[in-house]
Amino acid sequence: MIHDLIQAIEDQKDSLVKLILDLVSINSLLGNEDHAQNFIEEQFRSRSLAIDRFGINHDELKKYPGYSPSIGDWENHENIVGIFKPEKPKGRSLILNGHIDVVPVGDERLWTNPPFEPTIKDGHLYGRGSGDMKAGIAAFIVAFDSFKKIGLEPAADIFLQSVVEEECTGNGALACLQRGYKAQAAIIPEPFNETIMSAQVGVLWLNMEVFGKPSHVLNANHGTNAIEGAFVLWQHLKSLCEDWNNKKNRPAAFSNSEDPIKFNLGIIEGGEWASSLATRCQMNLRIGFFPGIHTEDVIKSIEKNITQTIQNNPELSDLKVNLLYGGFQSQGCLVDLESDFVKTLSKCHTSITNAEPDFFASAATTDARTFNLYGDTPATCYGPKARNIHGIDECVSINSVIKISQVIAVFIAEWCLFNRLSK
Amino acid sequence: MIHDLIQAIEDQKDSLVKLILDLVSINSLLGNEDHAQNFIEEQFRSRSLAIDRFGINHDELKKYPGYSPSIGDWENHENIVGIFKPEKPKGRSLILNGHIDVVPVGDERLWTNPPFEPTIKDGHLYGRGSGDMKAGIAAFIVAFDSFKKIGLEPAADIFLQSVVEEECTGNGALACLQRGYKAQAAIIPEPFNETIMSAQVGVLWLNMEVFGKPSHVLNANHGTNAIEGAFVLWQHLKSLCEDWNNKKNRPAAFSNSEDPIKFNLGIIEGGEWASSLATRCQMNLRIGFFPGIHTEDVIKSIEKNITQTIQNNPELSDLKVNLLYGGFQSQGCLVDLESDFVKTLSKCHTSITNAEPDFFASAATTDARTFNLYGDTPATCYGPKARNIHGIDECVSINSVIKISQVIAVFIAEWCLFNRLSK
Repeated sequence: MIHDLIQAIEDQKDSLVKLILDLVSINSLLGNEDHAQNFIEEQFRSRSLAIDRFGINHDELKKYPGYSPSIGDWENHENIVGIFKPEKPKGRSLILNGHIDVVPVGDERLWTNPPFEPTIKDGHLYGRGSGDMKAGIAAFIVAFDSFKKIGLEPAADIFLQSVVEEECTGNGALACLQRGYKAQAAIIPEPFNETIMSAQVGVLWLNMEVFGKPSHVLNANHGTNAIEGAFVLWQHLKSLCEDWNNKKNRPAAFSNSEDPIKFNLGIIEGGEWASSLATRCQMNLRIGFFPGIHTEDVIKSIEKNITQTIQNNPELSDLKVNLLYGGFQSQGCLVDLESDFVKTLSKCHTSITNAEPDFFASAATTDARTFNLYGDTPATCYGPKARNIHGIDECVSINSVIKISQVIAVFIAEWCLFNRLSK
Repeated sequence: MIHDLIQAIEDQKDSLVKLILDLVSINSLLGNEDHAQNFIEEQFRSRSLAIDRFGINHDELKKYPGYSPSIGDWENHENIVGIFKPEKPKGRSLILNGHIDVVPVGDERLWTNPPFEPTIKDGHLYGRGSGDMKAGIAAFIVAFDSFKKIGLEPAADIFLQSVVEEECTGNGALACLQRGYKAQAAIIPEPFNETIMSAQVGVLWLNMEVFGKPSHVLNANHGTNAIEGAFVLWQHLKSLCEDWNNKKNRPAAFSNSEDPIKFNLGIIEGGEWASSLATRCQMNLRIGFFPGIHTEDVIKSIEKNITQTIQNNPELSDLKVNLLYGGFQSQGCLVDLESDFVKTLSKCHTSITNAEPDFFASAATTDARTFNLYGDTPATCYGPKARNIHGIDECVSINSVIKISQVIAVFIAEWCLFNRLSK
């Protein structure tokens, strides 16, 4: 039977690739997910799944732990859950979750091909969101399909989720939780190179707005350029990042990682005139931190660092700093590698790849935290090999997606069990 | 007679202040000078000056030395010259020049009062452009008026110029030159605190566009953040600035100045997403350099510095840098302090203030270079005391503007001579 599932996916290779191509060709940047979600809804409907489509109710969601301050408000900004209920349940329930939102493309001139016109070359499918994570969504849809292809159906509830806002708040996944979706396991096929995620860092986003004391550059000695001031603050924040990466401060899962804590200056904007000292500079920062640390404590550390930098540098005494928090306020989390869930997934991985899985402590956050920390649903990430996610010429390995789809199918068989379809 | 001129300006104090208030209340940011120029035209017409109003013809002006690459194209973006021709000429001709354009206000929240709603407090008139340099324009208009008030008229050609683009290219003043306006002297009442300008630096504007090798911050060790890369380049450029300020490299006029060469990072913009390495960062830089150095050599030095920084820092090897030149490509210049012009102006200053004038080597550029280098017209700046030009809460001393107006009136009498008005 396992062999038949694997073969069924092998046979559906073209449909799988077509599905990824279709998904990548639909731009689903933040606030623009609607067309892609329509496509997903259609896919789910054509598989006779019950459809639940719903937006984020911030007033309600705010009360939940794990909520992150929103960074905007959009029309038609909805999650889709495709619900499968078996006729004769006997196995354990499962959530297959992926996010539909993709990150901005960066400077489009740097792409070999336009980011939303996917192309295939040397076994890789290129385009924004190909790896992160439309291939993953396609992989679990095709894994689900494979049962019917060989006359079977899974024997437990399966929830196929396509969510928004994974890349900025995680409020999409949290809204699924609030709506009642829990299961005995959740797999998120994030593009983590066929590893099983063992842990992930926490992430805080913040907007550091710095006001200087401006003047004509003629009098530059007597003013403070907000851009230069902001950069001094940023340099000192990075020393905090070095401290946090210190091996003696790390949870065991991260003991062998290369600097898993990253601080990133992702966006900067400041000044108005080449010959004037800038009055204002704004930096959008992404701060990583280890599991077990609370975001409130991260915020305190950041604010203390900035205050101290200003105190210790008299030339910065004119700076005014305004910290605004929008986006991720997301704790890190650890995955229980001894759980039956992870052991089962490992076994399925081995059955397809003939190798033990590697475990991966992620330097990024994912929606897995929401399931693990607040959803009573053991979750991990397990997805295909990809390159340049969030970068230029992002791509995913097609062979790897097929493998992931096969592992997920086998996992469904093991975890949810299955019944023969009545003719 | 001199006493009468001085008294006439004293008597016109209220009109002078009213004129500055009116001018400052008209926003004349780059590209938006039309309303202010209409007001100036009206002022000139009411004084029976002949009016010449004309735009900048870039195709023609480009051929002139001193032209700077334009940074935009605007409708109704014109210079105004008010032309006075005496009935019986006997003195030397004079240009009184001021620029109508003002620089951006910076973050408006930092202003005590809105920048285009001028206010008066403690003898100072506040608002964007109050010092730089609407007070100066008002000062020379009222100086011109004072002759008629006491039944006289100047006895040489006087050209009252209100020009655009002093703050970004100097092409406004250059267009006056191209149109044929020259004179035996030119005074620009820039807000240089009642000093006579002895020299000014050269200024180059450039736009440094940096492309990084982006990726998810997760893989930050294997990417190059364009913002961080651009900042490393900028830090190294600043060491060039230190070299150039070295006392042994300076023209005599600048020997006692505190670091007259300034490099300024005026505008920055980069990145798109807090959790992605920035693919692109753009910095608008203002580079100062000493008189006698050609802009082409400055450009070579800048480009060499950037190339070397990249060569010497292997972590920057992925950066691509694109240098775009728009705005100032303006040589520095020296003012001949032994000229009859400057000696006469000095004498007039002393006659009003009872003190020898201070001479000022300016760390900024002004339109004086255009007259001196390309216009066969000896020019300097001599204007009122002001604070926070290009900054927040810019203001000008009202008493100082009156003094400047008086000195200019006395200078007109000395330089242009005068006749009694026929009744």
